[in-house]
Amino acid sequence: MRALILEKLHQPLAFEQTIVPVPSPDDELVALHAAALNHRDVYIQQGLYAGIQTPMILGSDGAGVCDGQEVVICPGLYWGNDPRVQSKDFQVLGMPTNGTFADFVCVPRENLHPKPAHLDWAAAAALPLAGLTAWRLLFTRCQLQKGERVLITGIGGGVALLGMQLAIAAGAEVWVTSGTNEKIIRAAGLGAAGGANYREAGWDKTLKEKAKGFDVVMDAAGGDGFAALAGLCNPGARIGVYGGSLGKINSLSPQIVFWKQISILGSSMGTNEEFAAMLAFVARYRIVPVVDTSYELPDGNAAMERLRRGDQFGKIVLQIAKMK
Amino acid sequence: MRALILEKLHQPLAFEQTIVPVPSPDDELVALHAAALNHRDVYIQQGLYAGIQTPMILGSDGAGVCDGQEVVICPGLYWGNDPRVQSKDFQVLGMPTNGTFADFVCVPRENLHPKPAHLDWAAAAALPLAGLTAWRLLFTRCQLQKGERVLITGIGGGVALLGMQLAIAAGAEVWVTSGTNEKIIRAAGLGAAGGANYREAGWDKTLKEKAKGFDVVMDAAGGDGFAALAGLCNPGARIGVYGGSLGKINSLSPQIVFWKQISILGSSMGTNEEFAAMLAFVARYRIVPVVDTSYELPDGNAAMERLRRGDQFGKIVLQIAKMK
Repeated sequence: MRALILEKLHQPLAFEQTIVPVPSPDDELVALHAAALNHRDVYIQQGLYAGIQTPMILGSDGAGVCDGQEVVICPGLYWGNDPRVQSKDFQVLGMPTNGTFADFVCVPRENLHPKPAHLDWAAAAALPLAGLTAWRLLFTRCQLQKGERVLITGIGGGVALLGMQLAIAAGAEVWVTSGTNEKIIRAAGLGAAGGANYREAGWDKTLKEKAKGFDVVMDAAGGDGFAALAGLCNPGARIGVYGGSLGKINSLSPQIVFWKQISILGSSMGTNEEFAAMLAFVARYRIVPVVDTSYELPDGNAAMERLRRGDQFGKIVLQIAKMK
Repeated sequence: MRALILEKLHQPLAFEQTIVPVPSPDDELVALHAAALNHRDVYIQQGLYAGIQTPMILGSDGAGVCDGQEVVICPGLYWGNDPRVQSKDFQVLGMPTNGTFADFVCVPRENLHPKPAHLDWAAAAALPLAGLTAWRLLFTRCQLQKGERVLITGIGGGVALLGMQLAIAAGAEVWVTSGTNEKIIRAAGLGAAGGANYREAGWDKTLKEKAKGFDVVMDAAGGDGFAALAGLCNPGARIGVYGGSLGKINSLSPQIVFWKQISILGSSMGTNEEFAAMLAFVARYRIVPVVDTSYELPDGNAAMERLRRGDQFGKIVLQIAKMK
C-alpha cells in the first residue's frame, strides 16, 4: 500500500510503498478514502512528545470502507471504563500505532462508526478528532445549554470551528476571537454573532461591551491571555480548556474564579459513546465540517506545511482514494 | 444592647451600647449567645471591600435564641433561585447589614436553622460560614466520593479544618499542608493521614511520594504555589478554589489541566439548602468544629488581633451570653 512515513524526526514525510497491515483479532482493516491533519501530527514530526518511535505512519483522522460499510474512525483508542477520564492504556490513533496517512489502517473494532450519510469523504475525514474534542468539551464537561452565550478563542482551528458549529446547532449564541479579522468575518458567515481580534488593545473590554458576558468559553491557547477570559465570564460560567499553545496560564485571579463560581474544565478527546452521540447530533443538524484545503496523499508534506503556518480556516484533508 | 462597632475603617472596634434593632416583616430578631470571627471581618476593618459604610457591626457567624428556639444563622443572605450561583442581591451577613458581634441581630427568617443538639454555643457559632463554604466546595462543586484522597492546603483556617472534618466523615483520606509543622501534627491528631510543610523545598514531590496523588484539593491560597497542586492531582481530579490569599495564580500548565481532565472549581458560600444539608451531616456524624480560643464580647479587639496574626488553629469565638 501507499503511505506517508515519518522515517526520522524533523524530516519531511516519505511517500512510499509499504506492506498492508494485518489486523489483530480485535482490530479491523479499513480501506481509507480520506484522512485529515491535526496539530498533533506536526508536534510528533517535531519530536515534541515522549517515546516517539520511527519509522511510523502519522494521522489520527480517517474515513473509509470496512467490510463494505462506510465508516469514520473514533481516534481515541482504549479509553477504558471510567467516562470521566481516560485510562493508562489510552492512545490516540497515529502514535504509537500507525495512523491514517496511508491506503489502509488497523483500528479496534469498537472505534468504527457509520459515516454520516450527508458527508462526503473529505468532510467525514475532517470530523473525528475535532468533533469528538469539541463535543466532550461543550456537552459533557461544560454542560452547554440552549440560549447560553459561548466564546470560542482562536477560530479557524478544527476544534474551534466544529465547536462553533455544534454550539450554534444546540441553540447557543457564539462569539469568536482570532488574530486576523478575516477569520472573524468568515466565522460570522457561518453563524457567529460577532468577534474580536485579540491583537487589538482592549479587545476584551470591547467584547464585553458588545456581548455582555459568556456562559461557556472554549480555549486552547492558555498563556497570559487566559486571565482575561475569566473576566469575560458570567457568574456560573464554564471555561473548557483543550490545549495550551501559548504556554502557562498566568495572572489568573482566584477571587474572580470563586466569587463568580467559575469552573475551569480540562477536556481531552472523548469516549466511543461520546463519539457516537456527536455523530448522531451532526447527522440530525446536517453539520458539515469546514474543509480548508484538500491535498492528494502524495502531497502530504505540502499539507503539513500549511498546518504549520497556521493560516488555515478549517481542516486540511488528504484525499486517499479517488473522490466520488 | 451591647455591640462591637466599627466606627471608622482602620480603627479598633468600639464596645458600646446601641439600640436593639427592629426586624422587618421577613426578618427575625435573634438573641445571640456566641459569634465567631472570619478573615472577612478583618478585611472589612482594613477597608479591602468596596462600598463599606460605617458605623456598622461586623460578624457573619452567630448562634442564639429566636422565639425560644436555639438557632444557628446561615450567613449567606438572598442567594436567589439559581443553585449554581448567587444572585445580584446576595449578601454575606455582617456587611452591608449589621452582623453578629452584638447582643442581637436581625436576619431573614429563611436563614435561621435549628442548632445541632450536640454542639455547645461556642461550637455552634464556629460552624456556619466555614461549614457552609466547605460543604458546598466538597460536595456540591467537587462531588467528593467515599474512598477518594483529599488535599487541604493551609490547615488551621476555619474552612480548611471543617473541610477536613467533613471529608473524613464522608470516608475520604485527607492530607494537609501548612507552613508550621505543629499544625500538621494537630491535624493528624484529628484524623488527617499526613501532611507537608509548604515552606520546605520539594514539599510537593515528597507529598506525592507519600500520598501518590489527590482526587480533590481544597485551596484558598492561589498564588505561585497553585500550579504545584495541579501536578499533585490524579486524573479526573477536582480543585476547589474558595480564596486567594497569596494573589494571582501563575505558571499553571494547561497541558496538565486538559490531559488529566482536571476541574478547577470556584466556590463561595452556599444556599440555605446546602446549609441545612451540612447541619444534618454534622449532626449525623457528631462533628464538632475546632475552637481555637474564646473571648468575651468586650474583648473583641484581642480576638481580631489573634485572627490577623494567623497562628490560630480553628475558629476564634466571641462569647456573648453567659455560657451554660
